[in-house]
Amino acid sequence: MQGTSLDRKTIILRLELSTKLANFSRAASTIEQAGGDVVAIDIIQTGKDRTVRDLTVKFGEGGSSEQIVAALDALEGIRVVNVSDRTFLLHLGGKLTVQPKTPIQNRDDLSRVYTPDVARVCEAIHADPAKAFNLTIKRNTVAVVTDGSAVLGLGNIGPHAAMPVMEGKAILFKQFAEVDAFPICLDTQDTEQIIASVKAIAPAFGGINLEDIAAPRCFEIEQRLREELDIPVFHDDQHGTSVVLYAGLLNALKLAGKRLEDVRIVVCGIGAAGTACTKMLLAGGARHIVGVDRDGILTADRSYAHPMWQWYAEHTNAERRNGGLAEAVQGADVFIGVSAGGILTRAHIQSMANEPIVFAMANPHPEILPEQAEDLVAVLATGRSDYPNQINNVLCFPGIFRGALDCRAPLINEPMKLAAAEAIASVVSEEELSRHYIIPSVFNQRVVEEVRRRVVQAAIDSGVARRRPHE
Amino acid sequence: MQGTSLDRKTIILRLELSTKLANFSRAASTIEQAGGDVVAIDIIQTGKDRTVRDLTVKFGEGGSSEQIVAALDALEGIRVVNVSDRTFLLHLGGKLTVQPKTPIQNRDDLSRVYTPDVARVCEAIHADPAKAFNLTIKRNTVAVVTDGSAVLGLGNIGPHAAMPVMEGKAILFKQFAEVDAFPICLDTQDTEQIIASVKAIAPAFGGINLEDIAAPRCFEIEQRLREELDIPVFHDDQHGTSVVLYAGLLNALKLAGKRLEDVRIVVCGIGAAGTACTKMLLAGGARHIVGVDRDGILTADRSYAHPMWQWYAEHTNAERRNGGLAEAVQGADVFIGVSAGGILTRAHIQSMANEPIVFAMANPHPEILPEQAEDLVAVLATGRSDYPNQINNVLCFPGIFRGALDCRAPLINEPMKLAAAEAIASVVSEEELSRHYIIPSVFNQRVVEEVRRRVVQAAIDSGVARRRPHE
Repeated sequence: MQGTSLDRKTIILRLELSTKLANFSRAASTIEQAGGDVVAIDIIQTGKDRTVRDLTVKFGEGGSSEQIVAALDALEGIRVVNVSDRTFLLHLGGKLTVQPKTPIQNRDDLSRVYTPDVARVCEAIHADPAKAFNLTIKRNTVAVVTDGSAVLGLGNIGPHAAMPVMEGKAILFKQFAEVDAFPICLDTQDTEQIIASVKAIAPAFGGINLEDIAAPRCFEIEQRLREELDIPVFHDDQHGTSVVLYAGLLNALKLAGKRLEDVRIVVCGIGAAGTACTKMLLAGGARHIVGVDRDGILTADRSYAHPMWQWYAEHTNAERRNGGLAEAVQGADVFIGVSAGGILTRAHIQSMANEPIVFAMANPHPEILPEQAEDLVAVLATGRSDYPNQINNVLCFPGIFRGALDCRAPLINEPMKLAAAEAIASVVSEEELSRHYIIPSVFNQRVVEEVRRRVVQAAIDSGVARRRPHE
Repeated sequence: MQGTSLDRKTIILRLELSTKLANFSRAASTIEQAGGDVVAIDIIQTGKDRTVRDLTVKFGEGGSSEQIVAALDALEGIRVVNVSDRTFLLHLGGKLTVQPKTPIQNRDDLSRVYTPDVARVCEAIHADPAKAFNLTIKRNTVAVVTDGSAVLGLGNIGPHAAMPVMEGKAILFKQFAEVDAFPICLDTQDTEQIIASVKAIAPAFGGINLEDIAAPRCFEIEQRLREELDIPVFHDDQHGTSVVLYAGLLNALKLAGKRLEDVRIVVCGIGAAGTACTKMLLAGGARHIVGVDRDGILTADRSYAHPMWQWYAEHTNAERRNGGLAEAVQGADVFIGVSAGGILTRAHIQSMANEPIVFAMANPHPEILPEQAEDLVAVLATGRSDYPNQINNVLCFPGIFRGALDCRAPLINEPMKLAAAEAIASVVSEEELSRHYIIPSVFNQRVVEEVRRRVVQAAIDSGVARRRPHE
């Protein structure tokens, strides 16, 4: 998958050299003997007793960074302070810049973009705040907001450590959909403080993408912000996942010749994503859903302390099934996993209905590995890029925000999400559709345009568009 | 000054046309008869009863937008919805974009800037949060923060209307000093909520530029944030002004052959800027300062409800002068006005010492107009770009933040501000120095580099630099 096996790897070594004990040429020749090639040297600090230099070193298959570091560490008077590889180098100084659209070349320009002429623009917005959508970056800018409490699979690593992910997300927004996005990593994990801070910074933004915020506070934060702000608030971990899952399921059902209204669906893992997927399926017309979590099948026969589970039990499992995962999957047409690696067995799948559809989306380890289930299923999808049918949020969030911004929707509602899912599914044509291709690649450029188009139309049809964009 | 008198002006007219009563060619010919030239047409909306179109219209000296609009308004079935001129056009969609530094071209790139590889970078920051300064945009990004309560001369226009100013400021940061800056316009004017919100968003930023926040809350906000954050917090209205004023005064005193320690200085207008200027002058060695505001000279003989005035009275006016502006300026060497237009008279100046120096910085109307005082003074400076000696914050904030970011200072202290002022003053050479040229132009490219260099050195010398940048 990686396509870089032929490339030479690059690292940057920061070396501290004692001026008395070490000399630089000795370090360079040691690196060469260990299979490396010094291609650049930056002097970071020079002192009486020691110097610090950054060496850019390339090496091919004959070398490794470990070998080189070990060889240098063996030298007297040399200390390897730091090793950076290409991924780290890409992150030096961060991954985003803020650029002026118009350069200031003279006093005339200065007076237009800044004082005194800018005052007229300020006054126009003061007279009509809706003009902020035309005359400021609010028109095209989304905040990527996290509290760093549930970042990727890393957990609660805090706002500073979450930054690289949020910067990466901002790149995807720009590159896939020309949306300007800026990372807001909040140094608080208090629900009320998060809500207050996001509301406070909202004037600059035309949308809020919530990201990697732990359950259950992610629900209250999203709900309150949706109620209290007049711009779209979208928790990607919930809705992005549910939209793409739903898109994949539409195509998988088409292949299996089954209808959403008829199939029995098991959702395994009733957290943020599981609940959002279920709501989406219900909105789309699914009628037979059973949810299962660590404590077993959720049923209205029991009562749950957690309001989300209580809601879930009341809105699913009409038959009031009981038991665990094994009981849940028996006779089911569709398994949707957003739970934990390896919990689904071949026996489970064998107990399902004919032509079973399995979405094993736990990351990085799916509920069952494709190679273990391939022969039993009609369709299998995962969250991973190294298997076919990757359920990847990148298919959804750029286009859905592009559409919402273009029609100035104050929210992203269920019809818009359904439209986004149908758009994603529609990019795979009837002829292309196969059990290994139910969902387009994230690099398929038709996805964003199709999602945008249908989302705008759904916003107009559902009466939430505040603007009709040009086609 | 404007240099555009020969240019043709461009406006965009948004017209609503009744399909029954109006036809478009009639509108176009009317515009031509009124001296305009239709150079582009965008159809915004088409309906059964009405259409909306944006017309880009140029006109030279023979026409005016008022004439054109009046002529169109006289036509039946046509309504001019909106007129945008060039300044407004520059602001369409805002003035900033957020750009990726590295484009994502394939899955390999995607895995580096986003999942899964980005996880390693997150983990490195989680293990050592100081790495955020290297591996995220924190290294080079400043928040331009306002609550919209004291914007330019416009007053309390709120956060949405403040956006164009803050976006403009971000452009200046980028263009003059390669600092990435992002506008944070807060939808709250509560001191505690402002402090909490800025602290919450701080992880993404390497510095906080406070802007256009009303006194007295600007003082508490700045002080608390300085104490509670480990990145520079700089209220530009106070310190930017004081640094540039001080730079100008250094050169003015040189011309007048006087020393800062000896001169009698009157500061008129004891608000945020007046207090900051006074503190700077005291830090620089001034010993004879008298402050005067609406209620007269501030003196330790009286007590003041406002803590800032109390502080001021206790730290200035050792002679315990009393009276109003007339008494304050009598015999003074230097007048520093940050008060209101027109309050300084020729008689006031005539009562000053020989070779009087006047900084009349009230905006847009100086305390006295240069043409009224020119013949009486040694040096006169204002805040305006259409007179010589403009005291303009743009000379300070880009370079001082560039320096602070480069040496990773956790604050901008007095030595760094004094160094910035000396740097600005030093850009005017002995040979260039004259009563009409005491301060360099904002477009003088040497300013930022010199400010940066001296600010870094001052940070190192005062022990606050956390990094020694390359020269």
